[in-house]
Formats: sequence, C-alpha cells, structure tokens
Amino acid sequence: MYLEKINQPSDIRSLRYEELDQLAAEMRKALLHKLSKNGGHFGPNFGMVEATIALHYVFNSPVDKFVFDVSHQSYCHKMLTGRKESFLSEDHFHDVSGYTNPEESEHDFFNVGHTSTSVSLACGLAKARDLKGDKENIVAVIGDGSLSGGEALEGIDFASELESNFIIIVNDNDMSIAENHGGLYKNLKELRESNGTAACNLFKAMGLDYVYLEEGNDIPKLIDTFEKVKDIDHPIVVHIHTQKGKGYKPAEEHKEDWHWCMPFDTETGKSTVSFDGEDYGQLTCDYLMGKIKKDPKVVAIVAAVPTNIGFTEDKRKEAGKQFVDVGIAEEHAIAMASGIAKNGGKPVFATHSSFMQRTYDQLSQDLCINENPATILVNTASIYGMNDVTHLGIYDIPLISNIPNMVYLAPTNKQEYFAMLDWSIEQDQYPVAIRIPCNGVISITEDVDTDYSDLNKYQIKISGSNIAILALGDFFDIGEKLAKAVLEKTGVMPTLINPRYITGLDEELLENLKKDHTIVITLEDGILDGGFGEKIARFYGPSDVKVYNYGIKKEFLDRYAIEDVLKENHLTVPQILEDVL
Amino acid sequence: MYLEKINQPSDIRSLRYEELDQLAAEMRKALLHKLSKNGGHFGPNFGMVEATIALHYVFNSPVDKFVFDVSHQSYCHKMLTGRKESFLSEDHFHDVSGYTNPEESEHDFFNVGHTSTSVSLACGLAKARDLKGDKENIVAVIGDGSLSGGEALEGIDFASELESNFIIIVNDNDMSIAENHGGLYKNLKELRESNGTAACNLFKAMGLDYVYLEEGNDIPKLIDTFEKVKDIDHPIVVHIHTQKGKGYKPAEEHKEDWHWCMPFDTETGKSTVSFDGEDYGQLTCDYLMGKIKKDPKVVAIVAAVPTNIGFTEDKRKEAGKQFVDVGIAEEHAIAMASGIAKNGGKPVFATHSSFMQRTYDQLSQDLCINENPATILVNTASIYGMNDVTHLGIYDIPLISNIPNMVYLAPTNKQEYFAMLDWSIEQDQYPVAIRIPCNGVISITEDVDTDYSDLNKYQIKISGSNIAILALGDFFDIGEKLAKAVLEKTGVMPTLINPRYITGLDEELLENLKKDHTIVITLEDGILDGGFGEKIARFYGPSDVKVYNYGIKKEFLDRYAIEDVLKENHLTVPQILEDVL
Repeated sequence: MYLEKINQPSDIRSLRYEELDQLAAEMRKALLHKLSKNGGHFGPNFGMVEATIALHYVFNSPVDKFVFDVSHQSYCHKMLTGRKESFLSEDHFHDVSGYTNPEESEHDFFNVGHTSTSVSLACGLAKARDLKGDKENIVAVIGDGSLSGGEALEGIDFASELESNFIIIVNDNDMSIAENHGGLYKNLKELRESNGTAACNLFKAMGLDYVYLEEGNDIPKLIDTFEKVKDIDHPIVVHIHTQKGKGYKPAEEHKEDWHWCMPFDTETGKSTVSFDGEDYGQLTCDYLMGKIKKDPKVVAIVAAVPTNIGFTEDKRKEAGKQFVDVGIAEEHAIAMASGIAKNGGKPVFATHSSFMQRTYDQLSQDLCINENPATILVNTASIYGMNDVTHLGIYDIPLISNIPNMVYLAPTNKQEYFAMLDWSIEQDQYPVAIRIPCNGVISITEDVDTDYSDLNKYQIKISGSNIAILALGDFFDIGEKLAKAVLEKTGVMPTLINPRYITGLDEELLENLKKDHTIVITLEDGILDGGFGEKIARFYGPSDVKVYNYGIKKEFLDRYAIEDVLKENHLTVPQILEDVL
Repeated sequence: MYLEKINQPSDIRSLRYEELDQLAAEMRKALLHKLSKNGGHFGPNFGMVEATIALHYVFNSPVDKFVFDVSHQSYCHKMLTGRKESFLSEDHFHDVSGYTNPEESEHDFFNVGHTSTSVSLACGLAKARDLKGDKENIVAVIGDGSLSGGEALEGIDFASELESNFIIIVNDNDMSIAENHGGLYKNLKELRESNGTAACNLFKAMGLDYVYLEEGNDIPKLIDTFEKVKDIDHPIVVHIHTQKGKGYKPAEEHKEDWHWCMPFDTETGKSTVSFDGEDYGQLTCDYLMGKIKKDPKVVAIVAAVPTNIGFTEDKRKEAGKQFVDVGIAEEHAIAMASGIAKNGGKPVFATHSSFMQRTYDQLSQDLCINENPATILVNTASIYGMNDVTHLGIYDIPLISNIPNMVYLAPTNKQEYFAMLDWSIEQDQYPVAIRIPCNGVISITEDVDTDYSDLNKYQIKISGSNIAILALGDFFDIGEKLAKAVLEKTGVMPTLINPRYITGLDEELLENLKKDHTIVITLEDGILDGGFGEKIARFYGPSDVKVYNYGIKKEFLDRYAIEDVLKENHLTVPQILEDVL
C-alpha cells in the first residue's frame, strides 16, 4: 500500500512512475470504498485521479495554490493532503466535506460548491501574489461543464490581463452533469480531435496561451505537461482530456447516472438505497410532459440539472424541442424565459434554490421589470433540502420575494402545487415563481383553488380566535400541529392561515385579524431576515397585535441534522408554545 | 428634411442611398440638438446612425424583432419608429425614455438598461417563434463593451443551439464606457485587422457562423450585408466596425468623456452645467490614491465604470497595477476580490447599486461563505441616485444585508464614510460592504469612531424618551429633522440613533429602549420589503413597543421626481408626525 504512507503531497515525489500508477489504483479503490457506502460525486473524482497525482507531484502545495471548480472533484486532492483516512476508514468518512474546505486543510483555499468560480477566485490569489511580489504558481482547475457559466467566461476573459504566472487546467471529460450544451463544446471537440491544433480556439480567442494533452489519465504525460508550464510567466490554459468515471465500468458507460451516486453495491453498481414513494421531480416531469403534448408553446428549461424536475434522458428525448437544457447558464435561462414569454411561449424554468442565486439581476431586470409571464420553479428551497454550506436552500425568500412585480407562491401540498403551476403556465400577466415543497409529497383530498390571479389572498384554513398562525409553504405542516396544540393547551381554537403568496400582504385579512386576535405567529421555511414574517411584523408594528416570527436564523449552516436546526431555531411545537403562551 | 417625413420604418425604404446619407446627417443633427440641451448617451448613438438606418431598411420591424443591448444606443431606432418628435422638439424631449420601452412603441420589446442581456432575451424571442412555427427575423444588437459580461457570453454560447434564424449584430467601436479590458478584445482587434478573416475567432469558437463588415458607418455596405443574412436559417454573428461618437469631433477624439454627456455647448463641446462642490467619486479616488501610495497591497477594482469612484484616466495611470478595471464583469470582480483578500491583498471593489445586483451569488458563495476581508463600495444606492427604471439604487439593502457573514455599513456623513472605509481596508476579519452616501456630501466636525469591529453597535446621537428614531445612512438627515419637530410638537426630546450597521441588530440597545420608549421609528433609503426596518419590527413584534417603518414601497419607479416619491411614501417630516402622534 502506497496511499497509507502519503501524509503530505511531498510524500508522492519519491515514488517512481509505476508506483504512482499503483497509488492511482489504490486511490480508486478508496473512492469506491467510501462512495459505495456513503454516496457522493463519483464520475468527477474517478476521472481526476491521475491529474491530481500529477498536480501534487509537480507543484508545491500549499505554497503553489490549487483552486478546484465546484471542488466536487477534490476527493483525490484530499487524499494526498493529509486526509486519506476520511476515505480509507469508515469511522472518518464524515471528517471531511464533499468540497474543498479551508477549515480542513491549508491545501484548500476556498469553500466552493457552485460551478464556474475557480478561475476568478484564482485570479484573485494571483493578483495578490503580484501585489506582494511573491512568485508561487496559481492553478485553477475547471471542468468542461463549468465553462459555459457566465462567471467562468468572465474569469477566463479577464485572466489574460494578469500578465504573470497563471495556469488554468481545463479538465475536459466531454460531459457536464448531463451532456454539454452550448456552441463552445463544438470547439472543445474540434480541439480534442485535432490534438489541440485547431486554429480556431476558444481560449486563444480569449487571449490565453494554450497547450493540449490528449492522455489526461496518463501520469507521466501529465507530469511532463505540468512541468513545462510550472513557473510560466504568463497565463496559460492546459487542456487535458480525461475520462469521467474512469476505472469503474458502470460509471464509464453511464456517465450521467454516475456523476453523483447514492450508496451502491460495488459488484452490480445498483443503488442500495431504495425509494419508491412519490417525488416532486418525477411528478413535475409527468405534469409538464402532459402540458407539452397538449400545447406546442409550453417549453421546460433547465440549467444542467435536468433531473431536478425529473427530465431523465428518455423524457428529454420525448419532449424534443419543447425541452431545453441551457447548460450551466442560469442567467441566460431566466433572460431567455422572459423572451419566450414575451413572444407568446409558455416557459417553465426550474433549478435549485441555491443555483437560482445566480439570477437575481435577470429576475429583476430581464423578467420582472418587463412583467413577462414566465414560470420559475424554485427547487429544494427548504431546510429539508441539500445541507452543504454551498448548497443551502434557505435564502431564496429574501432574494426573490423582494423583487417588484414578482409573484412568489408557496404551495403547501401536491394538489396546491400543481394547481398553482397550471395557473401560472396558462396566465399571461405576471412573472411567477413557485417554491416546490420539499418536506415530502403531501396529498390532500379537498379541492384547491385553480385561479391565483387575485393576488395576495391568503386562505383561512381554520377560523378561530386569539392566536392566528400564518404557516407558509413547507411549514404549513408545523402550523397544523401548532394549531392543534394551542387548542389542547388553551381550549381556544386558533386561526390557521395558508398565506400562499410570499410577495404581498393580504391587508384586509390581516386588518380583520386585529378584531379578535392578540397574537400572530408566522412560520417560514427559510431565513427570517428579509423574509415573509418580517413583513407581517411591519404590518402590525404600529398596532397592539403581538407578532412572533419563526424561521431560520441568518447564518451559513453546514452538514446539519434537521432536528438540531429546528430546535436551535425554536421551531418545535413545544418551544413555540412556551414562547407564546 | 427627410427625417420629418419618417413616421414608420417603411418610410425610409423609398429613399435612395444619397437620401439615406442625408437622413443620417439630419439624425445626427437631431441627436446633437437634444443631447446638447438634455444630456444623455452620446457616443453610442452617434456611432449607430447608419447601422440603425440599414437595419430598418432591410428588416421589417416590428414583425422582425430588434433587441438592443443596454439600449442606450436606441435613440436612432426611436427616431425611425414614430418617435422623431422626441428628438426634434424640445417640448417632447421627455416623451421618451433613454432606453427601449415597450410602453412607447410596438417596435420595442423590452425595458433594458443593464448590459449584456440582448442575446439571451432575443434567444427567447427566437425560441418562442420556433415553437409557434413563425418565421420572422430575430436580431440582437450588442456592443463590444457588453461582450465581456457573463450573461452575454452565456447567451452567445447558447445561441448556436437554436438551429434557426438568429442574427447577432456585434457593434464594435473598440470601446466600453472606458477602454475595453479582457482577452477577447485582442481577438476582436485581430478580426478587425484581418477584415474578419483571422482563423481564431471567438464567435466561431462558440459555434456560430460569422461575417465581418469593416465599414460599419457606410449605409449601402450595411444594407448589403444585412440583406445577405436576412431570413438566414441558422444563427450568425454580423461583426461591424463602427466609430463611437462619429460626426462630432470632440466625441470622436475623447470617446470616454462622450460616452454619456451632460448638456453642453455645441460649438465648444463644453458642459453648460457646472458643479464645483465636493462629490464622493472624487473624494473616494483621492482617499484610495493615498492608500495605494502607502501600501502596495491596496487595489481598487471597478467594472467598466471607473469614474463611479473618480478614477479618471490620469488617476488610473497613476495607480498602475493597483487599479484594475475588469470590464463589464461584476461577478468576476467580486470573486477576484475575495481571492485577493484571501491571499493577503486589500481589495476595494466599487460599482453602482443597480449593477451590484449581478453579484448576489458571488457575494454569498465566493465572498461571504469564505469570510474574506474584501471591501465592497455600493454606489448610488439611494432614492437620490439614478432614476431610470433599470438603474434604481433602492434594492441593495434586501439584496446584500440578508447574506450571512456580510457586514453592511451605512455611513451618514463624509467623515463616517471614510472612517468606515479605512477600517474596512485595514481589518482582516469580515467581508464589508459600505453604502456610499448619496444625498450630497455632508461634513461634520465632531469625531467619528475609527473602529467598527465590535459589530452591530448602534450609536445614540440624542438620548431622549418616548419616541426613538433609528435613521439609517442617507436618511439620518430626515431623522435629525424629525427629532427636532417631535421636540417642538410634544415638548419631549426623542432619542435619535445612527444604526450604522445594516446587517445586524444591537439587541442590548433595542432592549434598553423598551424602558422609556413606546414608539420606535425607522427610516431607510431603500425599499421597505426585506430591509432594515422590518428587522426592527420583528425584534419588537412580541413587545408593547409600537414600530413605524419608513422607506420606499416595493415597486419599479421610473424617471421620478424625488419630492414626489418622498411624499408618496410618507417620508416628509409633517407626514411622519401625523402618522405617529
């Protein structure tokens, strides 16, 4: 075993090339060990084993500095920088995050998790180095999939202005999460097919020097290539062709399925975690496919995460021109959706809450100023969503709901969600965003409203007195339990309200509540700052009504247990009762 | 006079080429007439006269659809689409906005004012056309300066996926607002110098067809070129080389000064509006130049608007490597600033509040999760700032202040602003944003704090009772007047507080206020929704204290008079007194 002896990057420099190959095999074994039990980013790490070894062989980390894009491919980097136990030993699996993390190691410079940021972040390291008169190598690693993102393209365009050492490794495995989309991928293909010699070259067109290596999984050739660019005095792109998922047959053959994996059986490749309930991804896809078949103007749009709304490869093919994956290009997606709506189409763009963060200006300028009736689905927008610090879904209410003209809806169950979605697609007055529920698929039997065009009308679910509970979206569930507990505790039935609209106040209803309510409680599945509850507090500010806002504290959480977060934020029913009564 | 007879685009199609040249001369005269009296975007419109004539000569607007990037170059388009009186007759100058506006004309499809959006918006029009089975031409017009923006690059990359008619006119005048920055401009130069034949071609590298026209101010050649691409069955870039400011010597010679102009004397080119007071642009530049000279690690960063903090050409040269203009690339700017701070530099990035909207995800992910001590200056963040619907500065408090780890400061005067800026540059703990005051430069003689590291400590300026006024940033001024009026009216001195920190509550101070205050008033220069006052309302929600929040209603304003907006939002002292007493 070589891997067991690697405690720092310099330990690999004494190994011979054959030994490095052996190390690579051991690293793949360690990846398979951890990922099969734990899940995680599979394809990106299996493809980067050799390149990571070569990077650490040639460069002197942490004096020389690596910035990994998304950093979902940094598992091997972690193994070589003192964190191998987190892959070898099950007891230590959770010692490390799934991304680079400066708190773990001096070899990591940024907490990263969104795509397309590495070049710009690394430009900053390089600029500071130059200001200080230092001389280390700065190396940004970026996958081909991330290149289509605006921030990456801005960074690559700017890089040539540095006029000093700067190395961009383009790790080209000819895949995004799904297949790539965008014209630049034709150029990458040309470059791969011409062994980097094609005269038309995106990177050169952006003012950068360029070298190509076809054998991106060959350690000696990678070392040789990196040696040549080490200590270079200007910015250069090193374009390497790697194989996503290399070394594990199912992953080599089914790249999209193996971008990220749940725990699986290493023999068969089959997931060991089964889920056979309903999920909103599948349900949304089924619903949209129905619309698509009935109306040629309906178009589903995603940005490199097609399955976030259930569009697996077969469904994408079935939808044809009525499905668009723009690649990692969320800004473009929103602007294009606005244009489609303007010209009479019915666009539905969906992505995760965390990635929607890239689109504030487009939501505001391209969409909402123009009041075009596009539908935006905000997914995993919840404390029940992804729980890495870079993928949190608890900030979209302040982000989206404070944009004028936007109608942001918070359905509380399956029937309400699809009624809202259907209304949104068919109406032609408002830009509408919908927060897809995230606490499981809750079905109800009663009828839901089909028309939401009379904006900001909250729905009274239980008419009571003294205490009114405004329970938004996902947290309606907590509201129901709280209402029951209040009745039990006080003998008085409280009022329970489903606000439905995040973007406006039902002033008439709120005014009426003053008559026989002294306490108003708000519940929302997101941070309190800038959110829904504070608007209610503002409304009642000058009155005698007491307002209690419940939601999440403004902070960056990381790999949390939901129960803990709910407790820390006083979101359990007994805690709320104790506060209020 | 030909222009007087043009009531719709088809009216120009009966003119001979010499007559079109005459029309161009008349249009320049009309531009000069209006701009010399009214101010506006000069260079972009003078450069686009011929191209606009040719576009309307060849294409059939509004069936064929033009989308102008930024649309600051759309004055000529307005003249040819029924709006000539707004340029010929002083009484009608204000009938039209400075940007395209669908409310003005069916020839305008979007309210646009930010850069880099036209290609994506037009992609949307084209996609909807294809879904509907229509056949019109879709034409996006984009200047070279806008090409560096992430949204534009995402759009250009995506465009080749359309596989149907789509025409991108790249209006290359070799200038952004100031000079261009970024590697792609080397490629544009190569293309211009090779008459479009250079093998390495940014647009082809993004999968697009391409034609070049050197004579971008020659009507017959433009017509000929546009005729050739009309009704094309795939996406194509038409790269035309135009002269910014063409036809007015001072503007041809001093392109940056004449990008946008104040009213001026047409003979001399000198501004007829003089301003000799202090302004924060100049003051900020002077301050930063002082820091730059003392400390090689300080670096000022802008994104294509260098003079927003006073960096005129001479100052940029003087600052050398310690000044960086990233071009239109705000996302990159924030990420780079984070990287600089991480590696020990002291970055200060400044842009307008409205353009900062492009950077939410970078502020959150690249900067604040990583807690790097960069300084962000948010300029014209105020109702006193720019008043076009696309350039409003009243949304940044909800946008920025709800990001965890961010320290967002609101100075109330010159001395406090520079004390905060100096503290921010020298500290190494927090990402800090500062809202540059915008209601004139107010100087005070008393000392201000120099250390702001004890976060969220509000400052009591007058200690009183019964009513407490929390007057944030620019609106501290209103707070002072209100305090005086309250004393006069009630005989009781109210408490006046300068909160200073937008991002957190001084809970101890707020708790103490409960003792001898029954009313708390908040004042903020921005929209109320998601803002500062609502956090105060939330704090006092469960208490007996009555809270009144004053600020701007959540809406898109356009070309407003400040006095009207203040009145409509109950922001005058008599109105507040009436509400509260």
